[in-house]
Amino acid sequence: MSEYKLHCFCQSGNAYKCALMLNCAGADWEPVFVDFMNGATRDAAWRASVNEMGEVPMLEHAGERLSQSGVILHYLADQLGKYGGESESERREIWRWILWDNHKFTSFFASYRFRRSFAPSAEPAVMDFLKDRIDAAFAIADKRLAQTPFVVADRPTIADFSMIGYLFYPTEETGYDLTTTHPNIAAWVARMQALDGWQDPYDLMPGQRIAPRSS
Amino acid sequence: MSEYKLHCFCQSGNAYKCALMLNCAGADWEPVFVDFMNGATRDAAWRASVNEMGEVPMLEHAGERLSQSGVILHYLADQLGKYGGESESERREIWRWILWDNHKFTSFFASYRFRRSFAPSAEPAVMDFLKDRIDAAFAIADKRLAQTPFVVADRPTIADFSMIGYLFYPTEETGYDLTTTHPNIAAWVARMQALDGWQDPYDLMPGQRIAPRSS
Repeated sequence: MSEYKLHCFCQSGNAYKCALMLNCAGADWEPVFVDFMNGATRDAAWRASVNEMGEVPMLEHAGERLSQSGVILHYLADQLGKYGGESESERREIWRWILWDNHKFTSFFASYRFRRSFAPSAEPAVMDFLKDRIDAAFAIADKRLAQTPFVVADRPTIADFSMIGYLFYPTEETGYDLTTTHPNIAAWVARMQALDGWQDPYDLMPGQRIAPRSS
Repeated sequence: MSEYKLHCFCQSGNAYKCALMLNCAGADWEPVFVDFMNGATRDAAWRASVNEMGEVPMLEHAGERLSQSGVILHYLADQLGKYGGESESERREIWRWILWDNHKFTSFFASYRFRRSFAPSAEPAVMDFLKDRIDAAFAIADKRLAQTPFVVADRPTIADFSMIGYLFYPTEETGYDLTTTHPNIAAWVARMQALDGWQDPYDLMPGQRIAPRSS
């Protein structure tokens, strides 16, 4: 039995944040498949036993059951001694970018991709609303990444694993080709992809790949 | 000069999270007005000197400049010795709810209120999109607050100050009357309102009150 068990599925970039960190850190881990696409996380029994917030990822380790990718990434940084902050001010910077990621960077982009590719339909007004917010957040990140190779330091930290969550999904799913629109983000994505242990989300996590509706 | 300076404005529930905690903790603090409604946070010079993320609140203290309400609340809990977690597991629970608040609980509700009351117009499809997400998040919080008087413990913590941010704005702005729709959230709001130092957001923070468009 592996030391870490991560409840996840291949379409979840929030789960991928943790899966990728586990893999890059060389941890002994295995995925536990959650059938999100068929409603598993909306089931009352699943919520009662796994996560009342109805979300993946969920990490099992040493009798602990943790949810929220930002909590899991911090826990793993402590446990594995990798990708954490090295000073109080770096630790605050990491939290600052992870909070912003949850609020503004991952959140709207994840919703946009899901509605575009996997939902039965997508209201144009909602897609415009999301796109405005994605473009505002991506501009801030692109500017930041013009100044620093990784989000918080000159080495990758858990802030990078958090923000990178949805950026390895293909353009046919997301509708974004960052190499043309946001070159500094694209260059950072390439730096993350060069890490030992990097794997594509569809290779790293279980579940069936689904052809995106829009393609 | 006060010990803490909080850059804020009266319509910002994210700033209110920190203003209310400062006040309830009895800290020596003063607000610094940010003219968000007239575009101050979109100004490049403001972003360069105050917060590259273009957001309030921002806290100045002892030479530090901190942004993201979740970072500020943790910093204040450490500095003031109040409303923090008392064990590792409580500290993780606090972060778990603050992350979820940023992603799902505050975020959609804040956007909904802003578009409903202060934006020039609100697309019905976008409002429906936001309302579906608000209702899903409020159901989770209402269930939680049926089991516990405050979000994480039997006493208020910074998780409560985070989640309460937008819930003292009036029904005419938010469109929600929680006493009829979510009684456990409403009872918790009343418990927070009973804390020493509680003040209404429009009394606690500077700026001009604006009549909501929809009323």
